[in-house]
Amino acid sequence: MESINIAEKYGKFTAHWTPKIIAESNGQLVKLAKLKGDFIWHNHEAEDELFMIMKGVLTIEFRDKSITLKEGEMIVVPKGVDHRPKAEEEAWVLLVEPVSTYHTGNVKSERTVENQEWI
Amino acid sequence: MESINIAEKYGKFTAHWTPKIIAESNGQLVKLAKLKGDFIWHNHEAEDELFMIMKGVLTIEFRDKSITLKEGEMIVVPKGVDHRPKAEEEAWVLLVEPVSTYHTGNVKSERTVENQEWI
Repeated sequence: MESINIAEKYGKFTAHWTPKIIAESNGQLVKLAKLKGDFIWHNHEAEDELFMIMKGVLTIEFRDKSITLKEGEMIVVPKGVDHRPKAEEEAWVLLVEPVSTYHTGNVKSERTVENQEWI
Repeated sequence: MESINIAEKYGKFTAHWTPKIIAESNGQLVKLAKLKGDFIWHNHEAEDELFMIMKGVLTIEFRDKSITLKEGEMIVVPKGVDHRPKAEEEAWVLLVEPVSTYHTGNVKSERTVENQEWI
């Protein structure tokens, strides 16, 4: 058990769209990601996904609307809901999601990171 | 589904040691609390508890040590571990914990808030 400095953890990686694990609690993982550009459309069949914006601006497109989130804002994307994150400038996001969640959800693609790394 | 502005939610209450619920994801609740002074010794028999410090400084005493956390730091207190949060000055904390978690854990006292409120 130790304190985790979130900014320090962000300093440990630069790649976009590669979530890194910083903590586990009750079978859910806390992950950090740096996002820039468009991701792919996907959903998570059985898992809600919590996004908290730590820096910058993130837009999440849904099939019927899009929601723009800025630093200090969060959203829970319910299971089964198609979504596509995008960020014009680099955005830093904290995610909370079950151990079983792939970031690309129901879509396996070249964007999928199979074994996410602890930092 | 909507964006949640964390600072705005903190503006909705002033009482200390009364966690307020702002989101639910995968059976876990995201809560905000303002803490000042000493809490009681307790543990959560079956649930880990995630603390993220949003403002100020929080010290968590354990039976064998204490850990001081400042803004931008987090910790997961594993289930079953006795702990006692304290804050000399007001600290703002974000918690993630299962729906079933009481903030006073295994100890029911006059500090227990039975029905925590959504804000």
